[in-house]
Amino acid sequence: MAGSGVGARLPSVRELTARHQASPVTVAAAIRQLVAEGLVEARPGQGTFVSGAPSPGRSGTPEFSWQTVALGERRAGEDELRALLALPPAGAIPLSGGYLDVELQPTAALGAALARAARQPASWARGPVEGRPDLRAWFARSTGSAAASGGAGGLREDDMLLCAGGQAALSTVVRALTSPGDTLLVESPTYLGILALARSAGLRVVPVPADADGVRPDQLEAALAYTGARLFYCQPLYANPSGATLAPGRRASVLAAVRAAGAFLIEDDYARDLTIDGEAPPPLAADDPDGHVIHIRSLTKSAAPGLRIAALGARGPAGARLRSARLVDDFFVAGPLQQATLELVTSPGWDRHRRALRAALRTRRDALASALARHLPDLVPSVLPRGGLHLWVRLPDGTDDIGLSAAAAAEGVIVFPGRPWYPAEPQAPHLRLTYAAAAPDLIEEGVRRLARAMAKTS
Amino acid sequence: MAGSGVGARLPSVRELTARHQASPVTVAAAIRQLVAEGLVEARPGQGTFVSGAPSPGRSGTPEFSWQTVALGERRAGEDELRALLALPPAGAIPLSGGYLDVELQPTAALGAALARAARQPASWARGPVEGRPDLRAWFARSTGSAAASGGAGGLREDDMLLCAGGQAALSTVVRALTSPGDTLLVESPTYLGILALARSAGLRVVPVPADADGVRPDQLEAALAYTGARLFYCQPLYANPSGATLAPGRRASVLAAVRAAGAFLIEDDYARDLTIDGEAPPPLAADDPDGHVIHIRSLTKSAAPGLRIAALGARGPAGARLRSARLVDDFFVAGPLQQATLELVTSPGWDRHRRALRAALRTRRDALASALARHLPDLVPSVLPRGGLHLWVRLPDGTDDIGLSAAAAAEGVIVFPGRPWYPAEPQAPHLRLTYAAAAPDLIEEGVRRLARAMAKTS
Repeated sequence: MAGSGVGARLPSVRELTARHQASPVTVAAAIRQLVAEGLVEARPGQGTFVSGAPSPGRSGTPEFSWQTVALGERRAGEDELRALLALPPAGAIPLSGGYLDVELQPTAALGAALARAARQPASWARGPVEGRPDLRAWFARSTGSAAASGGAGGLREDDMLLCAGGQAALSTVVRALTSPGDTLLVESPTYLGILALARSAGLRVVPVPADADGVRPDQLEAALAYTGARLFYCQPLYANPSGATLAPGRRASVLAAVRAAGAFLIEDDYARDLTIDGEAPPPLAADDPDGHVIHIRSLTKSAAPGLRIAALGARGPAGARLRSARLVDDFFVAGPLQQATLELVTSPGWDRHRRALRAALRTRRDALASALARHLPDLVPSVLPRGGLHLWVRLPDGTDDIGLSAAAAAEGVIVFPGRPWYPAEPQAPHLRLTYAAAAPDLIEEGVRRLARAMAKTS
Repeated sequence: MAGSGVGARLPSVRELTARHQASPVTVAAAIRQLVAEGLVEARPGQGTFVSGAPSPGRSGTPEFSWQTVALGERRAGEDELRALLALPPAGAIPLSGGYLDVELQPTAALGAALARAARQPASWARGPVEGRPDLRAWFARSTGSAAASGGAGGLREDDMLLCAGGQAALSTVVRALTSPGDTLLVESPTYLGILALARSAGLRVVPVPADADGVRPDQLEAALAYTGARLFYCQPLYANPSGATLAPGRRASVLAAVRAAGAFLIEDDYARDLTIDGEAPPPLAADDPDGHVIHIRSLTKSAAPGLRIAALGARGPAGARLRSARLVDDFFVAGPLQQATLELVTSPGWDRHRRALRAALRTRRDALASALARHLPDLVPSVLPRGGLHLWVRLPDGTDDIGLSAAAAAEGVIVFPGRPWYPAEPQAPHLRLTYAAAAPDLIEEGVRRLARAMAKTS
């Protein structure tokens, strides 16, 4: 084998053609292939040389196929979440998205709060793993529960645990309170982030029907009894995507059903600061003496996507379980971000922002409804949601919501199809149209583009 | 039962004393207990009244016992992590802790970086879920791998994923690449955060022996073959707690063992900026053409606990798997923190900080070794670690490391016992003594206190 090691010169194309009785084209192609794989090296004017050990790992082309076995089956549920968080293409009008438009964010107040945090070196040091007591106390008070003023039930400072945003809080709860194979009950339709999380945690998801008054207590009671589930996820206030608020007459029966089943209710209170009409009812956690409600309150929705702060409230041993889980997940939330959050929510600018936001969301919600009335009258919802960021629009029977969303994107407007928000078969085709992500005049043009897409696909 | 319902007045203490033939002290105590439980209510000047239905759920005393069944078995591994992150009591000298002392943190540079971030409103907006490209590129370059300069192997910008700190990165990797019941190989002893995480994820942990030159490749090869494990966790640089660095002669065989087994190696490169002597060898990820190494690099250790930023590097389908898992876990890292991190690491102050840190860590490491030589000469390690934050001190055979740590705390010095760092039975009793958490003169006094505790317990 002399002459065949690293650095050895290959025979010329002519020699190889003769030796192997192959055409020069074939021989040249074979050499090009060897060069492409990094196994031989062409030195102009000198010839072709063996460039290294012929192990695939050493060539210029990495060999990842071994990962197929090591990684195993792919976990479901993440594609929709990725689509939800994708940045809209330039020039397209976003009638989709889970956050406020930049124009609606309290940019100046956020900058001032962060600048104040920058002048407090102590915020970089290590604090309690549960988060700063003053910020936890603020979150407890903001649940409006009796406990904050000394009464029974509801959440106190010690029950609160700070997390890096609402999804992080949700992830901690689901992982800490379930094992793979367990059942999770959800409203249907519901937030697709919980569906992705449940699938990645190996849970069985069982949908419970909801209507314009929120989840149906009779169906919840039946589902708890039938499945033996210990965990029910819901958004009682301006649910995403439907916009429904749990009706006052249903609150007690929902809590009673959960209590009777010895189950936990995850109250994802993502939209408390996004109220448009009237006053928001108190969270379910305020009427929960025995620790059945696990409360999640995020500031990301009402301030800015970059303010990744949420609080998780839970009482009894469940609170201890969640604190331990959070510790294993990521220790604690960055101190300067906690400091900036406290500066923000205790500044006079915060209430001003909430008032301005309320007015701006009303303008945009109504602009979207008017634009629909002008260009797509069949799609106007019978009742507008009293808060939140979205209209949940029912499409004519037989419409392909995913095809329509693709056609809309081609027309330059981003909408989100309804199907991924259902844990099972959807009852009817829907679109989720966000009014918070674009200015009113863009909303008008966006709906015009959507109407063109509908005309083309129907 | 007339007169015994809600609102009914209780008999006076005098009446009750007579009726039950009990002492007034006992009766008053019983009433105080009822008041404390919220069952009766004292109205000054009027008497004591039944205040509500005596159902446990409605009383002032919440009834959490139902949670026992709903929560099920407690998951192991979290207590040690909690102890590790506990703040030291006031007045005690910390020879324990995973972070730099405040005096060693680049406080001014951090404040300046955050102030600059505060002037950039765009950082509050939503960015790519993987993190800012410029910061990801910085992390890729900082691995010193060939890829950054265009060569084969190693990590590029697109392979990097930003996470909210090293523990968050680790949590994502472990959860995304395993299912409950899978086997995780670890060096022994090893970082107790990975042990807590593995236990909470339901993994089987199998220790692989390591010595002063890092993990033993022959044992790793055998363990991979014997268990069929697809995942091996290690800290090749200044391992926590042992301080060992993987010897140059072992790098190729460790990588070959992992490659032959079709497994992943998690390289927790937590201490790259904590080098004291000489230059750190390049990460294993720089010599990994086929994506076997998953690289974690954190800035929390070398800057401040509040800078919760780490990068996760992975190539091939594994990178995609991790990006999806991170999305489900917590979407993305707060933009202003990414901005501040970029400002920090690209400022001239960063290199100055690293140089000053190197000198300060050397002073403290040597101060700890000298103090041990003076007061506890049997405990001086034979070889000092070339970087990191800790000395791993072998105790005389038969010493109870946990008892000694408790006795040391009573003397006013916090040390961490060795036992929790072993996945199985420890080979010998150890203490982990941190030199980064206290100033040199306090280190001297801390060791004196430790010597007193040893004298008392032996």
